[in-house]
Formats: sequence, C-alpha cells, structure tokens
Amino acid sequence: MRTLPEPVQRLVDAFSRLPGIGPKTASRLTFYLLRAPEELSKNLSEALIGIKQDTGLCEICFNITNKDTKICEICASEQRDRSTLCIVEEPLDVLAIEKTAGYNGLYHVLHGVLSPIEGIGPEDLKIKELYERLKKNDFKEIILATNPSMEGDATAMYLHERLSGLDLRITRLALGLPVGGDLEYADQNTLLRALAGRQNLD
Amino acid sequence: MRTLPEPVQRLVDAFSRLPGIGPKTASRLTFYLLRAPEELSKNLSEALIGIKQDTGLCEICFNITNKDTKICEICASEQRDRSTLCIVEEPLDVLAIEKTAGYNGLYHVLHGVLSPIEGIGPEDLKIKELYERLKKNDFKEIILATNPSMEGDATAMYLHERLSGLDLRITRLALGLPVGGDLEYADQNTLLRALAGRQNLD
Repeated sequence: MRTLPEPVQRLVDAFSRLPGIGPKTASRLTFYLLRAPEELSKNLSEALIGIKQDTGLCEICFNITNKDTKICEICASEQRDRSTLCIVEEPLDVLAIEKTAGYNGLYHVLHGVLSPIEGIGPEDLKIKELYERLKKNDFKEIILATNPSMEGDATAMYLHERLSGLDLRITRLALGLPVGGDLEYADQNTLLRALAGRQNLD
Repeated sequence: MRTLPEPVQRLVDAFSRLPGIGPKTASRLTFYLLRAPEELSKNLSEALIGIKQDTGLCEICFNITNKDTKICEICASEQRDRSTLCIVEEPLDVLAIEKTAGYNGLYHVLHGVLSPIEGIGPEDLKIKELYERLKKNDFKEIILATNPSMEGDATAMYLHERLSGLDLRITRLALGLPVGGDLEYADQNTLLRALAGRQNLD
C-alpha cells in the first residue's frame, strides 16, 4: 500500500488527535480541505493559533475570556445577581447553563474534578481561589453544578463538607428524567433518582 | 445569553464549516484545544497551511502528491502494472483501492463526476487529459471505478461510450451484497444487482 504524501498524512494525523475524530473522519476532512478554497483551511489555521494567543482565564471566575480583558463579561456585568454562585467543572458548562437563559448569577470554574485515580486533588483545581472568593464576597447561595458522575458527585460532596460551616444555602442540580425522555428507556439509577426527587404538584 | 470570547467563537465557526461537524462538535473540539497543550493546536494549524502549500496534483494521474515531485509515487513506480488504468472520482478513492492491496495498476483521478444539475460537464473533469493519456500509452484494460451512484453511473456510461471504439477491455466494479452484510437488510436495488451479477461456483 502506498502512503499518502507527507503534508496530507500530517494533517490526517493532526485531525486524528482530536477527540471523537477517527482515522476515517480525519481523511475525509483532509481531502475535503484539499478540494475546498484555500481560505477555509487558512481561517481554521489562524483561529487555532488565536485560541491560545488571544484567550486567557478570567481572574475572578476562571472562565475563558479575551486575553486583553482580565475579567470576563459575566463577572464584569452589573446586571448579574451577585448573591448566587454556580460552581462548574469546565468553561463549556458555563456556556451550557448560559444557553438555558435560566440563571443570572455568577460562576466559578474549577477546571476539573477530584479524581484520586488520576492523582487530581483539591490543590489541582481552583478550590483555594473559591475559598478566597467566598471570604471576600457575600454570597447567599452556592449551586454545586458539577456533573452527575462519580467524580462530579465526589467533588460536590467534598465542597459541601468544606462549605457547610458557612452561612450559605448550598444546592445541587436536580437529577431525574430528561425532558422528552422515555421512562421505559431510562436507566435504573436515573429512574431511582427521579423517584427519590419526586415533587408535589400544587 | 452571553456570547463566547471572539477568538473562541472564531474557532467554533471555523470548525463548523467542515463537513459533518455541527455546532456542538465544534465547541467540544474548541474547548478541548483550549485545555490541551499548545503544541496540539499549533501542529494542526501548521498542517492546515501545509496541505495547500506543499501539495499539488500529479501531472499524469491527477492524484494528490508533494508539490516538489511533479509525478506521484504510483505513476513513478516501476513495480506497477502499466497496462491497467483505474478511473476514479476523487483522490480519496485511490486511497481506498490502495488499502485493499488488490490492485497493482495505474490510476486516473477525474476530480468529480458529470452532473448536469450542478452544471458539471466533461470539460470540468480531467477527461480531456484521460483521452490524451490513452493515446500516448498502451493500456489493455480500463476499470471504471466511479461510485455506484446516479452521477457515478452516468459518468461511467459516458466514458464507456466514448472509449468503446478503442481496442480496450472496459470493466466496472462489481455490484452486490457487501461482505459481512445481511441479505435481509440489503436494499432492493443492491439485491437485484447481486442476483443479476450472480456467479458460477466451480
């Protein structure tokens, strides 16, 4: 079998290193770009450089922000409710919650979860920064919005214990059936949590 | 809803313009790269530039090749059978056939198919170059390996008519059940072609 020309193989390899992109998709993308106008690959190339050069973390909440503005739009906004803090694992989670348009408080991005197996402890996350933030500000409610996974739950439990001494309402996102989901196809744990969390109809 | 910082949004948009990558995958890839070592996005960025700068088309078969070698490895190889020519739509098809390791002849890449609806006629494909190649060389067999789609079939028919005057064996790839496939789930047309193309067992 003949191999691909080196520049083509190189792009296939570079695409293959991205999550969810296998060798087949990588060659499909590569050959698409070979045929497409040069502007398309040039744009993508420049955006890839920009993503590292022009972005940084917000000094308050550690969400992704423009490098030249040290504080993100949400932390800087005067329209946000400064008494509620939502703690999430990753910047993408902020985006997901913002898209619901159902939350108007502030965020704190941990940049990971506790994971003893992978050797990730509290000092590897933005937890020290969280304590400092809680000391300086007057929050009324903390929403622990880590993922409903083993690590996410453990991280929420850890934070709950540490923060329970403070005069704060501490909440966790509800677990239950997804909207539009099918009871029949729900996994056992989800159904169990949906039962346990059942609510009164008034 | 807050928007993403400009450099982040730009990369999401650039990824979204690739085929098969929707807005969700685009943000997942972007946020992955934000967290990943800079080397990953730098590599991809450079490979994207290289794909246009360092590649060209082989002057003989029009497959993708290194810009500095004007003739591709397959056309230059002395191990290949120079009496058989396989005509394909795209460079990716060459790769697919090479992977089978079941073909040792030469290729000719049309760079598309005839498509009256999209206004693509014979002059938009490498068909004139194919005629010239057939004049200059002494092929014994032409394999029409365009896709078994409406356009691919029409292109094969067109070429068959044009080439039938020449002293050449003209063949088309077999149609039938895919290996490992299930007769029960095969579509009607495939099954019809598998029946029509049935072969003697000796």
